[in-house]
Amino acid sequence: MTGRCHHKGDCWKEGVAVAHDDLFRPVQRQRIYEQVLAQIEEQILQGRLRSGDRLPGERQLAESLQVSRPAVREALRVLEAMGIVSAGTGSGPGAGSHITGNGTPVLSTVLRLHLALSSFSQREVMEVRVQLERWAVREAARSARAEQMSGLRTLVDRMRDRQISHAEFNELDTGFHVGLAEACGNALLGLLMQALRDAVHQEMTLTFQRLTEPLATRDELVSQHAGILDAVERGDGDRAADLVEQHVVGFYESLERSRAQAPTT
Amino acid sequence: MTGRCHHKGDCWKEGVAVAHDDLFRPVQRQRIYEQVLAQIEEQILQGRLRSGDRLPGERQLAESLQVSRPAVREALRVLEAMGIVSAGTGSGPGAGSHITGNGTPVLSTVLRLHLALSSFSQREVMEVRVQLERWAVREAARSARAEQMSGLRTLVDRMRDRQISHAEFNELDTGFHVGLAEACGNALLGLLMQALRDAVHQEMTLTFQRLTEPLATRDELVSQHAGILDAVERGDGDRAADLVEQHVVGFYESLERSRAQAPTT
Repeated sequence: MTGRCHHKGDCWKEGVAVAHDDLFRPVQRQRIYEQVLAQIEEQILQGRLRSGDRLPGERQLAESLQVSRPAVREALRVLEAMGIVSAGTGSGPGAGSHITGNGTPVLSTVLRLHLALSSFSQREVMEVRVQLERWAVREAARSARAEQMSGLRTLVDRMRDRQISHAEFNELDTGFHVGLAEACGNALLGLLMQALRDAVHQEMTLTFQRLTEPLATRDELVSQHAGILDAVERGDGDRAADLVEQHVVGFYESLERSRAQAPTT
Repeated sequence: MTGRCHHKGDCWKEGVAVAHDDLFRPVQRQRIYEQVLAQIEEQILQGRLRSGDRLPGERQLAESLQVSRPAVREALRVLEAMGIVSAGTGSGPGAGSHITGNGTPVLSTVLRLHLALSSFSQREVMEVRVQLERWAVREAARSARAEQMSGLRTLVDRMRDRQISHAEFNELDTGFHVGLAEACGNALLGLLMQALRDAVHQEMTLTFQRLTEPLATRDELVSQHAGILDAVERGDGDRAADLVEQHVVGFYESLERSRAQAPTT
């Protein structure tokens, strides 16, 4: 049953009424590159283009689709930006782009730019993180494998090193939170966590530069990480969830305080 | 303190050691359009370009940046695809693109395509939704305003109408779940919920077409929606959370069953 029919007026087909104004939609002007994009997307959604497949080169695509090469290039740029296609170089037989599947960079960029445009706030990012991380550690407490846990322990040990830069500390910090998300076995959660962390990475590094006692703060964050891992390893998911919430909210609040104290420029 | 210095070997500055191999990074080939993109992104991140601002026209941008117009156009296409810029038309004084801030379409497209490329699974999307929706209804039970609740009631009433198409039913269904997310007052959550729903919209409509008793299923979903709203209005967040989880998981499982029964083509 498709919910579509070709009669005038409303009619019934297998018990479902079909409103005929459903048959028409406002005509939308679709630019050439958007039509190219739509065709490639459709092939992916239909499963005819898969991860690892090579797209024809620009020239060949332009010929098949009967459009200009710049239109093809614009569509490919958009797909690259979305992490769907990796750029191809040259023009020989090995040229052309590949279908790939790395959504993290685009999600990070989109979140970072929309944060800058005030589509949502730092606080809202923090709140979403808290919910996702509470769930991640509860799941990890149930199902994380030993090697995942020992990888996280190693990260925490590396963060103890007071000689690493704040930027490096923040990268390890991101690695810890993304690692926890991945330990719970949901790939989408890992992707979202990476994007949410990346979105506030610059702000976090700036915050550290403003703190009066950055190394003391780092020590505190590291010991909170160790506490979260202890709870996960004991299988105490509820405790791990509360600890991760205190950790994320606490750091956000110190970030807010340091922002309030920062000289306005 | 910047964590950077210009001495040879490791050195200390205000207590932080700076590793000198931190000063160099692998040289990355950045294409012209990527440099254009980076400059516009930087203006947004610095807050110098804000929502509603107009970008110079393509020709003027090309002149200021001393690059070709196609390179400018490729960068603008990427920003349009990310919902950062809305397309400008024509070439007169009113031409040029505007900075906008609608991240939903790109998040939806990215999630849909990555789902098709198996970067993550339908089940993982469902699991993330469950966590976010459990939180949304708990928050809504605490803080939703009367007009938000009556808006959601109206949506549920419209879904009771057996004469609407499955596609229309699914759109109202999405509206219900996104509305719940928005009722909890976190704009990022609303955005994510819309994107997660959009990502599986086509699959959901197909599922309905496969069901043997689609209208009975619709009635059941509507009465589950009403039950969730009842619990939210009573302020019983825990009950609302359990109901929304049963609702989302239950529908996902019926989707799995119908997929297992579908003839393979």
